[in-house]
This record gives sequence, C-alpha cells and structure tokens, in this order.
Amino acid sequence: MLIDSKNFSIEYHSRSGYGTFHRIDKRIYSKQSEYQKIDIFENTSFGRIFTLDDVIMTRESDEFIYHEMLVHVPMVLHPNPEKILIIGGGDGGTSREVLKHSCVKQVTLCEIDEEVIKAAKTYLPFTSCEFDNPKLDIVIEDGAKFVKKFHDYFDIILIDSTDPTESQASQLFTEDFYLSCLEALKKDGILSAETEDPFIHKEWMRNAYKRIHSVFSNAYLYTAYIPQYAPGCWSFTLAFKTLGNTEPEKQDHEILTKTRYYNHKIHKACFALPQFINTLIE
Amino acid sequence: MLIDSKNFSIEYHSRSGYGTFHRIDKRIYSKQSEYQKIDIFENTSFGRIFTLDDVIMTRESDEFIYHEMLVHVPMVLHPNPEKILIIGGGDGGTSREVLKHSCVKQVTLCEIDEEVIKAAKTYLPFTSCEFDNPKLDIVIEDGAKFVKKFHDYFDIILIDSTDPTESQASQLFTEDFYLSCLEALKKDGILSAETEDPFIHKEWMRNAYKRIHSVFSNAYLYTAYIPQYAPGCWSFTLAFKTLGNTEPEKQDHEILTKTRYYNHKIHKACFALPQFINTLIE
Repeated sequence: MLIDSKNFSIEYHSRSGYGTFHRIDKRIYSKQSEYQKIDIFENTSFGRIFTLDDVIMTRESDEFIYHEMLVHVPMVLHPNPEKILIIGGGDGGTSREVLKHSCVKQVTLCEIDEEVIKAAKTYLPFTSCEFDNPKLDIVIEDGAKFVKKFHDYFDIILIDSTDPTESQASQLFTEDFYLSCLEALKKDGILSAETEDPFIHKEWMRNAYKRIHSVFSNAYLYTAYIPQYAPGCWSFTLAFKTLGNTEPEKQDHEILTKTRYYNHKIHKACFALPQFINTLIE
Repeated sequence: MLIDSKNFSIEYHSRSGYGTFHRIDKRIYSKQSEYQKIDIFENTSFGRIFTLDDVIMTRESDEFIYHEMLVHVPMVLHPNPEKILIIGGGDGGTSREVLKHSCVKQVTLCEIDEEVIKAAKTYLPFTSCEFDNPKLDIVIEDGAKFVKKFHDYFDIILIDSTDPTESQASQLFTEDFYLSCLEALKKDGILSAETEDPFIHKEWMRNAYKRIHSVFSNAYLYTAYIPQYAPGCWSFTLAFKTLGNTEPEKQDHEILTKTRYYNHKIHKACFALPQFINTLIE
C-alpha cells in the first residue's frame, strides 16, 4: 500500500513517527502565503478540509466540536458577554459560534494572515458564514501585538491558534502574551485558549496550561473529542481574570438549542480529567 | 511525501478515505493465522503496536485507556463481581485489569485465535502479564458458541472484540449473541461491550447499542478517549440484566489507586454524551 501526496493530504507528526491522511477527492485551493501553505480540498466522507502547512485546521464534517467547545464553555459562564476578541480563527468558525449568543455586541477577529480570511470567505462558507455580520470586525494583524492595545476592554478572549511550532503562533503560547490578555480583559473577563493534546503534544499542552495558570490564578483545563485534530483528544484552558467557577448558572441557556456537541452534561463532564492528565499538569 | 507499507504500518479506512499510520522502527512478529494477519512492531514513541489485518488493536503507550474503561466501569458498579467472562481480548489487557480487583475468583478469557494468545504471551508482556495467574482460564473457542454453554453463571461479561467487518467478530454484534450473554449472566450481572466509534463507524456503533438495548432494557452508552483507535473517540455499552444504575456506591474503591485513566469523575463524565451522539442513538 502506498499513500502519496498526489492523492492524499498527509499530516505527519515526524517526531512521533505517526500521522493521519485523507483522500483528496477534489482539490479546491492551494496558495503559499507570506506565513504558510494554505490548502483546501474535498473528501467525500468528511467534506471540505482546510490545512495550513499540511496540518488540518478545519474539517467540514466535525469542525463544530472544536468551535463549540472553545466558545460556549466560557460564554455560558460569563454573566453578560458583549465584547469578544478572537485571536486567530481565520476560518470563521469561532466567530460563527460567538454570534449565536444574542447578548454579543462586538466581535473582533484578529487574524495574522489575510489569505486565510480570503480563502475561507470563498471556499469555507460553513465557517465563514458570519463574515458580513455588522457586529464582526476582522483585523489583519499579529494577535500578540494587537491585544497589547487594550486595557480592561473585552469580556471574553478566545485564543484559536495553530500549533506552537516555529511559526508565528508560538507567540500565542508565551506568558507575555497571556499577561497582555489579562490586561485586555475586564474585571469579570474570561479567557479560553486551545492548548493542544495530551498525547503527541503533551509538553505543549502542559506548558500552555502552566503558563496560563501562572498568569491567571483561577484556571481550569478541559477536554473534548476533536477527531479532526490527531490524536482525537484535545485540550482547552479556561481562565478567569478574578472570581468565577466552572458551573453555569442558567440551566435554560439559549445556546442549548443551537449546538450539536455542547450541552449541560458535556459542560460539566469536560472538566473531569483522566488520571494521567491530572498527573501531567500537577 | 510517500507513506509506504515497508516503513509504515498503515490503517486505511477506505470507505471514509481516511487513515492513520505509524512508522515501523522495528518489526517484531508477523504471521497469517487461520483467521487473520497478525503483526507486532515497535515505534519509538508509542512502544509495541499489535495489529490484526493492519488495524491497530493494542498500542503500548495508551492501551491502558481502552482496557481500563471497558473493565472498571462495570466492575465498580457490581456489588461483588467474582466470575468474569471476557470474549475476545487475546492480548490480555482486559484480563490484567479485571485481576486488579481482589474480589475476582475466576476469569475466563475466550479467544478464537490461539496464535493471538501465543504472540501476546511472547511479545506483549505489558498486556499478557496475568496469563499465568491461577484465577485465569484461557479458552480457545468461538465466543458466540462458548457463551451459549452457560446459564445464570457470570457476574460480568466483557466483550472485547475486533470490528464487525466480514470477520468472525461480526457474530459478536448480533442480537442472538447478546441474548446468549443475557442468559449466561446472573440476575445482578452486567455486560460491557466495545461498541465502535461515533464518527467513521457510526452505523456500527448505533446498531451495536440498539441491539444490546433491545435485549437488555437497562443499557447505557459511554465514551472515552482512545487515541489508539482512529478517530480517537470510542464507545462502550453498559447493560444490566435487571436493575442497576451508572452511579458507583463506593467512593473509596480499591481500583482508584491502580488506574491511569479511570477515576470517579471520569466514571460520571463518561456517560455525558455530546448532542450528536444523543441524536444518533435516539
């Protein structure tokens, strides 16, 4: 058997000697931007798949899980989230989920790579569907620099970054960046960040959680099944600027009629960590 | 980039046009048995990996998750599990976990393929470590036939099968087989079965759950992160012969000091299903 990059999109985690592949049934888009190689293709079973440097970012069939879990866990815990900042998230899925909350007044999506926004707008309508929403501002800028402009301003900050490899995204995993986020949040503000996986990138996960927790004393790791991201288990870190806990107050939140993964039981369950993860982040 | 089966073990789910691969750092064992192709190889990051017909069964680094979750969820819910039947499970991981419970008096492991037992004994010591335990009987027989010999006998039956493809394992996903299990269980007996994944094998999962539930009126689906099985989310079905619920009585169960994934919070959380899974099994 032979898996070649002519017929398949191959995501190879060479350090682990492990990877995943998807059959390319139709090539849709390919471009080398200033920052990364952007590809979009179609697979009959999973729909459109968007990769950056051959790593899957968005898979049409199940992107809803990642986006719902990054967004709704913090949104439901905030009493009145009106001003939201998204760092990264150029496919639009995170802003789509944020805008499902009627209380939201202003969403700022800060994406470093304009080519990602353009490609998403044209070829990923299922995630970019709110790009024309008047509540949404799209800013093309380095998120680590952008967030430094704000003080006591946002209710929620969502960090929807790529992996902390040598790329620009590594800036989004530093204590300095998390400190800027703390500054940019209002007193009752909440941060939620994707913090990698506990198997093949466990050091990245541990470091991200530890750094956030060193800046935000009130922080919690949570997990979800994210099959689009190998190895299928993914972590997020939730952090409160001041007080706050992981239990939602409202049992009849409007979002519950608009989700495909998130529900109240999942909200509670996602904070239950397996023993080996407890040990990893001790 | 080229992934070839000389240097990599490739698990291709061709119907989905999707798969995973592991670099083969050292080949350990390969044999075509009467039933299937058995391979064991080593990968530096994940340890020894055991495949049947090129589908991963056991990965040294994280097999503990599957085995703990198949075994401890039902074991903890039974007041006094003494006689245990394992159908399949030739690598030994399930029997290893069962034998961590000091109340267990007799474990019967019924595996159809003797070559799997032999290979596991020699090359997978981390799972087969209890093969010489005097409480364990290994029977080489078709599990679907074997279970029909018993009536009102076992406290727990664990179905640790391969996928329900055209292979022998498809017998272990029929209503007839589940009825035999019901018969073989004592009045307060519990069954737990691996029931595939809700993404690439969602029809298999749905069918398995529905069939078990049609035989056992008191049945519950639960899930765990199983990164060794693509796509990383796996389901099990727990079923009580008569009464019973998913809440453990004891908060200080002996098993809690012996696990790496399972804990009380995970026990509760594993029954919280995402919305799309609730819909799938409605």
